[in-house]
Amino acid sequence: MTLTNLHQTMVDYRRHFHQYPEVSYDEVNTRLYIIKELEKLELKPYTFSGKDVAVEIAGLQPGKTVIIRADMDALPVLEETGLPFSSKIEGVMHACGHDGHMAILLGLIHYFKENPDKIVGKIRFLFQHAEEDVPAGAIEVVKSGGLKNADAIFGFHLWEPLELGKIGVRSGPTMAGCDKFTLTIFGSGGHGSMPNETVDPTIIAAQFITQLQTIVSRSLHPLEQAVISIGELKSGTNYNVIPDTAYIAGTVRQFGKEIAEKIHNRMDKIISGLCESFGAKYQLEYLHGDPTLVNDDQLYKMVKKNAIQLFGKKRVEEITPILGSEDFSNYTEVIPGMYTYIGIGRPGETYGHHHPKFDIDESMLVPAATLISQSVIHFLAGEEKLINLYQANNI
Amino acid sequence: MTLTNLHQTMVDYRRHFHQYPEVSYDEVNTRLYIIKELEKLELKPYTFSGKDVAVEIAGLQPGKTVIIRADMDALPVLEETGLPFSSKIEGVMHACGHDGHMAILLGLIHYFKENPDKIVGKIRFLFQHAEEDVPAGAIEVVKSGGLKNADAIFGFHLWEPLELGKIGVRSGPTMAGCDKFTLTIFGSGGHGSMPNETVDPTIIAAQFITQLQTIVSRSLHPLEQAVISIGELKSGTNYNVIPDTAYIAGTVRQFGKEIAEKIHNRMDKIISGLCESFGAKYQLEYLHGDPTLVNDDQLYKMVKKNAIQLFGKKRVEEITPILGSEDFSNYTEVIPGMYTYIGIGRPGETYGHHHPKFDIDESMLVPAATLISQSVIHFLAGEEKLINLYQANNI
Amino acid sequence: MTLTNLHQTMVDYRRHFHQYPEVSYDEVNTRLYIIKELEKLELKPYTFSGKDVAVEIAGLQPGKTVIIRADMDALPVLEETGLPFSSKIEGVMHACGHDGHMAILLGLIHYFKENPDKIVGKIRFLFQHAEEDVPAGAIEVVKSGGLKNADAIFGFHLWEPLELGKIGVRSGPTMAGCDKFTLTIFGSGGHGSMPNETVDPTIIAAQFITQLQTIVSRSLHPLEQAVISIGELKSGTNYNVIPDTAYIAGTVRQFGKEIAEKIHNRMDKIISGLCESFGAKYQLEYLHGDPTLVNDDQLYKMVKKNAIQLFGKKRVEEITPILGSEDFSNYTEVIPGMYTYIGIGRPGETYGHHHPKFDIDESMLVPAATLISQSVIHFLAGEEKLINLYQANNI
Amino acid sequence: MTLTNLHQTMVDYRRHFHQYPEVSYDEVNTRLYIIKELEKLELKPYTFSGKDVAVEIAGLQPGKTVIIRADMDALPVLEETGLPFSSKIEGVMHACGHDGHMAILLGLIHYFKENPDKIVGKIRFLFQHAEEDVPAGAIEVVKSGGLKNADAIFGFHLWEPLELGKIGVRSGPTMAGCDKFTLTIFGSGGHGSMPNETVDPTIIAAQFITQLQTIVSRSLHPLEQAVISIGELKSGTNYNVIPDTAYIAGTVRQFGKEIAEKIHNRMDKIISGLCESFGAKYQLEYLHGDPTLVNDDQLYKMVKKNAIQLFGKKRVEEITPILGSEDFSNYTEVIPGMYTYIGIGRPGETYGHHHPKFDIDESMLVPAATLISQSVIHFLAGEEKLINLYQANNI
Repeated sequence: MTLTNLHQTMVDYRRHFHQYPEVSYDEVNTRLYIIKELEKLELKPYTFSGKDVAVEIAGLQPGKTVIIRADMDALPVLEETGLPFSSKIEGVMHACGHDGHMAILLGLIHYFKENPDKIVGKIRFLFQHAEEDVPAGAIEVVKSGGLKNADAIFGFHLWEPLELGKIGVRSGPTMAGCDKFTLTIFGSGGHGSMPNETVDPTIIAAQFITQLQTIVSRSLHPLEQAVISIGELKSGTNYNVIPDTAYIAGTVRQFGKEIAEKIHNRMDKIISGLCESFGAKYQLEYLHGDPTLVNDDQLYKMVKKNAIQLFGKKRVEEITPILGSEDFSNYTEVIPGMYTYIGIGRPGETYGHHHPKFDIDESMLVPAATLISQSVIHFLAGEEKLINLYQANNI
Repeated sequence: MTLTNLHQTMVDYRRHFHQYPEVSYDEVNTRLYIIKELEKLELKPYTFSGKDVAVEIAGLQPGKTVIIRADMDALPVLEETGLPFSSKIEGVMHACGHDGHMAILLGLIHYFKENPDKIVGKIRFLFQHAEEDVPAGAIEVVKSGGLKNADAIFGFHLWEPLELGKIGVRSGPTMAGCDKFTLTIFGSGGHGSMPNETVDPTIIAAQFITQLQTIVSRSLHPLEQAVISIGELKSGTNYNVIPDTAYIAGTVRQFGKEIAEKIHNRMDKIISGLCESFGAKYQLEYLHGDPTLVNDDQLYKMVKKNAIQLFGKKRVEEITPILGSEDFSNYTEVIPGMYTYIGIGRPGETYGHHHPKFDIDESMLVPAATLISQSVIHFLAGEEKLINLYQANNI
Repeated sequence: MTLTNLHQTMVDYRRHFHQYPEVSYDEVNTRLYIIKELEKLELKPYTFSGKDVAVEIAGLQPGKTVIIRADMDALPVLEETGLPFSSKIEGVMHACGHDGHMAILLGLIHYFKENPDKIVGKIRFLFQHAEEDVPAGAIEVVKSGGLKNADAIFGFHLWEPLELGKIGVRSGPTMAGCDKFTLTIFGSGGHGSMPNETVDPTIIAAQFITQLQTIVSRSLHPLEQAVISIGELKSGTNYNVIPDTAYIAGTVRQFGKEIAEKIHNRMDKIISGLCESFGAKYQLEYLHGDPTLVNDDQLYKMVKKNAIQLFGKKRVEEITPILGSEDFSNYTEVIPGMYTYIGIGRPGETYGHHHPKFDIDESMLVPAATLISQSVIHFLAGEEKLINLYQANNI
Repeated sequence: MTLTNLHQTMVDYRRHFHQYPEVSYDEVNTRLYIIKELEKLELKPYTFSGKDVAVEIAGLQPGKTVIIRADMDALPVLEETGLPFSSKIEGVMHACGHDGHMAILLGLIHYFKENPDKIVGKIRFLFQHAEEDVPAGAIEVVKSGGLKNADAIFGFHLWEPLELGKIGVRSGPTMAGCDKFTLTIFGSGGHGSMPNETVDPTIIAAQFITQLQTIVSRSLHPLEQAVISIGELKSGTNYNVIPDTAYIAGTVRQFGKEIAEKIHNRMDKIISGLCESFGAKYQLEYLHGDPTLVNDDQLYKMVKKNAIQLFGKKRVEEITPILGSEDFSNYTEVIPGMYTYIGIGRPGETYGHHHPKFDIDESMLVPAATLISQSVIHFLAGEEKLINLYQANNI
C-alpha cells in the first residue's frame, strides 16, 4: 500500500472531521473518533495531557524517535462554504484546515502500520488539542511529557497564502513569537475643571503610546523585526470627570526570546519613567505567549531536499517569516523541529484561513503525507541507512 | 413685617423642600407646593417653560422690572446628614442648597407682598428648574420668554467655600463657561500583527491628546484662563486587534465665548491635521454648554455697596473666578445680572456642595434675603428715589 | 516753586539724557552728570553699589524713610526717531523711556529741595543702573544696602501700551517673575544607521518638549497664569550622526515664587523620568531671575486715591498683569512698594518700547512727578498729618 | 602565470597605494599611477567620467562584456597603524581597504593579460573614484556611459566584520539605500512671554520627531527593515525669544526604492498635517542617496558555487543585510551585479573600517582575486563552455 492509495481514506477522514468540528479544549468527539479509528488498526492510543491523543509505531530496527503532530481544534465560525459535508455543528467550523491535518496524520498511520520496515526507530503520532487558544494545547503536551525521548518533531500546515502545489520551507525563525501585555496606570482622578488636583492617567497613557513607538523605531536593531500594537485603551466613563485609572492592552510579535525581553524591558522603563514624572503608579503584565517557531537548519535542509526530489525545484519555495504565531513553537523550543507549509491557494479564488468560506484543496493530502513520510523516514535512517532502505524497499 | 421676622417661615420652607427633593426636570411636587403657597398669598403664579414657576409683584409706582431667581432641583445623592428633616426620597437629596434658595425667594415674596411701596416698578420672582442638568433649565426659561421686559436679574448661592457670614462678589467673568466635546476618530482596523495595513486610531488619539495640551500652554493668551480635560477615552476591545475607531470625550472650562471659539477652532485644526497625516477621518462635536457667568459692573458695585452697608467692609469679599459653571449665565448673556455668594462654610466642619453630608447654615437665610431685597429696591429706585424711599420707609 | 514750573527743567534733563545714552552696566557719564547736577543743588550724592547714584533729602519733621527710584540705562538700539535731540552715541538709544524717568526724579529732587516742609521724615532718591540686564542692577542695590532703613519704595514707568494721560495701577502681582532654564540631555551618540546602539538625545528632547506643555495645561491651577517657552534647541551637527547631547534653553514667566517652584519641580520630574526611561543623564539649571513685582495693597490704594484726586476717575485705570518683568520686583520682595504706569500711548501713532522710533510724550513728565510727589508726601505724613500738611501748605 | 604567483605584485601595489592615499574626488596621483602601470602592460587605459580609469581586455572568442570594479579613494583619517608603509600624506589614509581593492584589480589585469584564452568575450576593469563621498563617483560613471554594453558587474570588499578567510555572499537586497532629508519649519517667532502671538516651530519640531517614529513602528511592513535618524536639530538662538524657524536634518536607511518612497511620503504627510494644525509652513527635501545594493540571484548562486569549490562550504557564509551603503548599488540598479565580501577580521585583534588603526590582511589578496577571476570566467563562458574551458586550460 502506498500513500497514493490512501487518498480516498484521507478524504473520508477529512470530511468526517469537517462535519463534526469542535472548538479548542472541547475536542471530545474528535478524540473518541480518532481513538476508535486507531483501535480499528489494532494500535494502542494513549494520551499525555488527557486532551491529546498519541500513538506509536515502532520500526523493525531500533533507532531514534520522531514525532509527527497534527492539531485537532476548529473555530467558532459559522460556515458559509455550501459544501455537502458542511459543519453539522452550528457556529463551529474547521476554518483553518486542521481537519485536513488530522486526515494526513491518520493516512500516515495507515501507511506506517503497513510499512514498519521503513522505520528505523519509532514514530510517535500526536493529535494535539487547542492550537487556536491561549494558553495553547502544545504547552500542556510539553508539560505532560509529550516530547519525552523524542529526537525531533515534524509539523505542517495546509497553507492558503502559498500557491496550490507549492511547498514552503524556511530555516530558523519562521513564525513570530506572540506576547500579550496589559498596563494599568493608576493616577488620581478628580473634577474635569481641576486637573491640577489630579494625576491624570489619560495624559500618561497618551505619552506612553507615543514613547512606545520608539522601541521598534529606535531600540531594536534595524534588522530585528517586531510589532507592538495596542488593541485596547480605556480611560474614564464621564466626559467631565478625570478618571483614576487608564487601561491598555496590546500584542507583541517578535522573532526571538531576547527581543521579547528587550521589548518588555523598554516598555517597563518607559512607563516607570512616566509614572515617576507624573506621580502615578502602574501595573504592567507581560505575558509570554507562543514563542518564536524556529525551524532546525538540519531538518529544514533535509525536508527541502526531499521536497525537491518529490516535486521539483520550482515547487519548493523559501518563504519569508510569518507574523502569525503557532503553538508548534513550544516544541521547537525543546527539541529540533521542522514546520512545513503545503500550498493550497489559488489567488482570487480561495478564501483565507478563518474565513467562513475557507476550504482546503484535498488534492494536497497525498503530497503532504508523502513529503512528511519521506522526511521522517530520511531523518530516522540517516543518510547512510537511507540508501540501504531505498535499495531494499524500492522507495 | 421685616425679613428678620420671616426667619422661621423661611426655615420651615427650607426644611419642607429638604424632605421632598426632586431631581432636575422632575420638580413636579416642588412646583405644585410653590404654586399652592403663592396662591395662599393671593398671588397669581404662572410659568414660562411649563417647568418653572413665576410670579410678579408690582410696586405702587411704575418703573423697571427686575427678576430674582432661585433654582429648584435636587441631586441623585443618598443623604447622610442624619438631620431630623432628612430627605424622604431615597437617593435624592438637596445637596447643593437649592432648598435654601427657594426658601429665601419665598421669604422675599412674603416681604414684598407686604411692602409693595418699596417697589418702584415690578419684581418677577422666578423659581427655575433643572439648574444641575445639561441642557440647563435656564435656557428653556430664556427661550420661552422668561426675561421679557426685564431690566436686570439677581441670583445668589449659599456657598460653602466662602466663610460663614461673608458675602462674595465679583465684577465681570465670575463662573466659567462649560463646554463638552466628543471626538470620534475613524481609522481602519486590522490584525494586531499588521499595523501597516491599518490606520490605527489609537496612535492618532495619543497624538491628539498630546497636541491638545498646546492649546492652553501656547495658543491662549497667558492671562486667559481655561481648562481642557479628557474624561473618556475608548479604543478597541481586543488586545490583539487594531480597532476602527477611537472615541474621546472631554470638557472645556473658559471665561469667554471668544476663548471657547479659539479652543474649538484649534482642536479642530489639530485633529484635522492629524487625520490628514495618518489618512483617517474624524467627527468632532463641540457643544457649548452654560456660557461664562458675567456679572454686570454697575449691579456688582451696587450690591457690594449694599453688602458693606448691611454687614460691614470686613464681611464683603472679592472672590476669584470660579471654574464651576452655573446656568444663571444664560440670563447674564441677555440682560444685566448679578450673582452673589452667601458664605456658609466653616472650614474643617462643613461639607462641600454635592456631598452626602452637605448642609446649609440656616442663619444665613435672613441676611441673604435682606441683601437681595435691598439691592433690588435700590436697583429699581435708582440712587435718587432711593433716598426718598429710605426717608419715607425708614429702611 | 511747583512741579509745573519745573516742566522745562525736566524736558531739558530728558533731552540731555536722550542724546547721551549708555547701555546697562556702562552708565558712567550718566552717573557723573547726575552727580554734578545734584552737587549744583548742594546735595550730597552717594552710592550703594558703586554703579547707582543715591541722594537723600530730609524733611523738617522726623519720620519714615521712603525711596523713589528711577532707572538709568539705555538699549543697544540704533535710533530712528529723527528727533533733533537724537542719540549721539551710534547704536545706543534711550528706547525704553529711562531718560524720562531720570528727568522726573531730578525734577522731584528740585521740588523737594525747595519744599522740605512737605517731608515728614526722609526721601531717598535712587538712580539705579542696569534695569535691562540680567542679573539686574536692583539686585546689586539691594545687596549693598540700598533699602536700609527704608519703609517703602515708589517706582513708575512711562508706558506706551497705556493711553496718553492715563494712570495705570494694580494691587498685588503686577509684573511677571522671569526665570531662565537650560537643560542638557546626555545620551550616547553613534552612527545614524544604528539607533539601537545609542541613547538618542534628540528623541528625549522631543518628548521633553511635548510633556513640558502639561505643566501649564494640567499641573498649574487653572487660574495660575504662567508661560514656559523654549527659545533654543540644539542637537547634533551632522545629519548622519546621532549626537551625544541635546541642549534646550527657555524662559518661564509666572506670578509668584511658589508657582516658579512648582514649574521647576515638574520640569525636573519630567526630564528625570524620561532619562530613566531612555537611559540618559541630564543637567537642568533653573535660574530665578527677577521675581514677580507685587504692589503693596495699602500703597496701591493710596496712589490710586491720589491719582483720582489729581486726574479724575476716568483717567485712572486698573491694569491687568503684565508678562514682562522689571527688576523693581527685587525691591518689592523686601519692602512694601508701588509701581505705577504713566500712559504715553496714542494707538496707531506711537511706537512700542524698545522700538527704534520709540519716543516718550514729554507732557507727562509733570503729571508723573506730581502723582509721585503727592503719593510720597501722603505716605510719609499718613492720613492725619496729611490734612494738617495740606492746610498748612495749601497743597 | 597564476594568480598565486602575483601575490607579491599585489602586495607591492597595495603598499604603494597605502603610502599615497587621496581623498574622494582628489585621486589625481592614484589615477596617474594606475594609467602608467596599465601602459607598462601595453594596455590602453581610458576614462568615462574623467575621474575614473578603465581598461578592457578582450578574449579570444566573442561573447559578453563583464565589468570588475575597484574603488580608489582614501579617507581624511590620521593613520595610527605604525606600519612601515604608512601614509605619507598627513591626515589622509586608506582606512577602508580600497588600496587592497585596487591591488586586486591590477592583479586580475596582469592575470587576464597573460590568459586571454580564459575570456569568452571581454572584461572591463574599472577603477572608480569617490566611493566615500556624496554624490558618489559611481553615479558619474553610470552617467558617462561606464556600463555601456556591459552584461554584468562584479565588486568586492575586504571586510573586517567577516572572519578572516571567509567569503560573505547574499542574494537580493544586501546593503541599505541611504537617503538624506532636511526639513525647515517656518513658524512665526516672537517674545518668549507671548506664545499666543507666535507659531512656535520648536513645538512643531517636537511633535514631528514624535510622529516620525510611527513610520518605522506602524507604517512599514513589520518585515521591512528601515532606520530614520535625526542627526541635526536647530531651533532658535536666544532662550527668551521664540524663533521663526526650526531645522531638522536626518538620514534614512532602507532596503528598496518603494520603501524609501513610502517613508518620504509619510514624512511629508506628517509635517504637512502638523503645519495645517499649527498654521506653519515647511520645506522638506528628501535626497535619494545611494540606492539599495541588490545582488542578482543568478550571479550570487554562481559566485557562491565558485567560492564553495575554491574554499569549501565552511568558509562561505550567508550574510545578513548591511545597514551601511555602497555606491556599487548605482550599478546594480542598471545591470545585474554581485558584490562579494572577503573576510579579513580577527575579532578582538583587528580594527574596524575607517579606524586609524585599520589594516587589511594581505593574505586575502590572492583568494579574493582568484574568486573574482573564476566567477568572471564562469559568467562569460556559461555552464557549458565552462566545462570546455576547464578541460582545455586545466583550470
